[in-house]
Amino acid sequence: MNFAEQAHLAKDASRTLATLSRAAKDAALAAMADALVAATDTVLTANAADVAAARQAGTGDALVDRLTLTPARIVGMADGLRALADLPDPVGEVIRGWNNPNGVRVRQVRVPLGVIGIIYEARPNVTADAAGICLKAGNAALLRGSSSAMHSNLAVTAALQAGLAAAGLPREAVQLVAGGRAVTAEMMAARGLVDVLIPRGGAGLINAVVEGSTVPVIETGTGNCHLYVDAAADIDMALGIMLNAKVQRPSVCNALETMLVHADIAEAFLPKALAALAEAGVTVHGTPAVQSYSDEVVAAGPEEFEAEYLSLDLACDIVPDIDAALAHIRRYTTGHSETVVTDDRRAAEKFVAEVDAAAVLVNASSRFVDGGEFGFGAEIGISTQKLHARGPMGLPEMTSTKYIVDGAGQVRG
Amino acid sequence: MNFAEQAHLAKDASRTLATLSRAAKDAALAAMADALVAATDTVLTANAADVAAARQAGTGDALVDRLTLTPARIVGMADGLRALADLPDPVGEVIRGWNNPNGVRVRQVRVPLGVIGIIYEARPNVTADAAGICLKAGNAALLRGSSSAMHSNLAVTAALQAGLAAAGLPREAVQLVAGGRAVTAEMMAARGLVDVLIPRGGAGLINAVVEGSTVPVIETGTGNCHLYVDAAADIDMALGIMLNAKVQRPSVCNALETMLVHADIAEAFLPKALAALAEAGVTVHGTPAVQSYSDEVVAAGPEEFEAEYLSLDLACDIVPDIDAALAHIRRYTTGHSETVVTDDRRAAEKFVAEVDAAAVLVNASSRFVDGGEFGFGAEIGISTQKLHARGPMGLPEMTSTKYIVDGAGQVRG
Repeated sequence: MNFAEQAHLAKDASRTLATLSRAAKDAALAAMADALVAATDTVLTANAADVAAARQAGTGDALVDRLTLTPARIVGMADGLRALADLPDPVGEVIRGWNNPNGVRVRQVRVPLGVIGIIYEARPNVTADAAGICLKAGNAALLRGSSSAMHSNLAVTAALQAGLAAAGLPREAVQLVAGGRAVTAEMMAARGLVDVLIPRGGAGLINAVVEGSTVPVIETGTGNCHLYVDAAADIDMALGIMLNAKVQRPSVCNALETMLVHADIAEAFLPKALAALAEAGVTVHGTPAVQSYSDEVVAAGPEEFEAEYLSLDLACDIVPDIDAALAHIRRYTTGHSETVVTDDRRAAEKFVAEVDAAAVLVNASSRFVDGGEFGFGAEIGISTQKLHARGPMGLPEMTSTKYIVDGAGQVRG
Repeated sequence: MNFAEQAHLAKDASRTLATLSRAAKDAALAAMADALVAATDTVLTANAADVAAARQAGTGDALVDRLTLTPARIVGMADGLRALADLPDPVGEVIRGWNNPNGVRVRQVRVPLGVIGIIYEARPNVTADAAGICLKAGNAALLRGSSSAMHSNLAVTAALQAGLAAAGLPREAVQLVAGGRAVTAEMMAARGLVDVLIPRGGAGLINAVVEGSTVPVIETGTGNCHLYVDAAADIDMALGIMLNAKVQRPSVCNALETMLVHADIAEAFLPKALAALAEAGVTVHGTPAVQSYSDEVVAAGPEEFEAEYLSLDLACDIVPDIDAALAHIRRYTTGHSETVVTDDRRAAEKFVAEVDAAAVLVNASSRFVDGGEFGFGAEIGISTQKLHARGPMGLPEMTSTKYIVDGAGQVRG
């Protein structure tokens, strides 16, 4: 089947999904979870082929780990689907409504987006996650996974489709998009058939989709996250937040990448900070001013301040005042999550008002910027754009709205 | 000044606008209104040059009328700016907020989008409207008007900038983008400098922007609006809604363009409808089934059903049932406003559930789908896309959001 055929089937399926009751969707999610667990052996066999090919291609251990499925990970994927069933249905929510003076009643109601295309990299568990979130919000999913996970993704999708069929829903509600690079281009040009594209992966993938797509895109993920340690920071608090944001899980988009320290607190804070970072195995990339505090600090220029390391590396500079910190952030931010540590009310308010990002944090770790931590129960990614959704995206962000206008024959005068 | 310079100045200005109080913005709107009225003579002189050039180029009367300014129209533009001052400020609104179990407080707050680019056709009053709406929502505006209104737009913009300066705000908050076609291309490629592009005009303009832009776009306007007269329609009500939606103002996007009549009511309804339409000067383009009711009905094929006439023309067909009506609408809809007239509860619910459009109307004229009629107080256009905003766009649709996360040193476990 070619992509256009798949997309038309998805569009047809989306019409069925749009009018399903919550109960029908939740039953389908449970059936998909059951089918996935039932297919454990098939999925593991397929996954083993992907893993063997990756090893043969010399793929690094970290990536192979992300690619590898285990019985426990499959149970985790199934649990994720079941957890979605427990979340409220965003579709049908009346966001606002009013009666016009002439008696015409207007309601703005959440409706599904329609067909959502997801373009993502190595991890096969995204296949089940994304399919489940799209389905719960009443959308058909076209999943364009990485070729390195193709066997795994095919097996997972087959299981999910068996679950859909068992629940009496169209299999085409969840489809894997296979084929070469040309298919990605077709997907990006499928305006009118695909309602939105969500790229999930590295900056290269995201930029390619943003630049090349005529389908509307929701940009996710790149996080060059800053921590500004203000002159009025509580030093212990700043140390705790710095370590947590940098070290607790360095490979994720809300991890800390750059620290800016106010000159007035540098002497009290930096020696402790550099020692703690060294102990945690973090390589600090600093300007000469930072290097003057420790021989272990390696040199940093614009490239280091632009980097989203996603590793135990941290860029660092000393700034003369909050305005310099804000100017630095303005230059290098990817608009994800930016943090200030301060006990100064005015500094906090200035930082919050002037930083232009999806999330601005005061005296808290940027690791909290996450759909799970926000209590959304499910997350398709973290939007770093300003249109439609900004920050962690849960089920409501996977919907659009429709105005329903109800009258008794009124016409406009 | 070239476009890149203008865009950078707009970005700088947008940072000032983002943190203004409502009082400061309202004072600026009043000053802009005063400056515009004070500049009446200059604006009329400039406009006369545009009108003379248009007449010389053989422009039709309707377009010349849209282009023409009068003292009363300038007062109208100024009143529009003053009316914006009376509307609540969308910026700063807390949309939702909660405390996490660990005491971290999260708020989602409305913030300006930043720099909004508007690409629009002939009418110079849009210059003041769009500038005012952008300003009230804290955004800088880059206005790309039609070359045929260039003198008028320059004069209006100069007046608005004088008002901004009088109110102590940066003139660059409102800028007219001049130059040839290449400048439009630059604007569409200015990702990172321009936060959103809103094309306002015909389908050709809108498609060109949608296809060519890497800046996120909000699609507005094209309205191939349908009226489905169900078997259970009240005939007088259907006649009233049909006439109002088609005739009251045929040149606008929420006007009726296609009518579908259930076969069971055709004999009772169509002779009256065709007579009323003929009396109102409407040319009906119908299928042979419709033509059998009147010699005055001209032939209609797929092209007629695709057309957004914006004139006293109406495409018409007879359908065997509601499913055929829904299939027709699915094929031809532009996703603007679709209407059913029926007294049958099930038919109404089916129509509302299955039609995929910004607005779905039951027993009311599609002319109500309008920011003014919805009570928004201001409207930048009617979005026909599903992301970000759908339907009439008021001030809140000209904003994004930001999560503010407040802690006392919390870190993630």
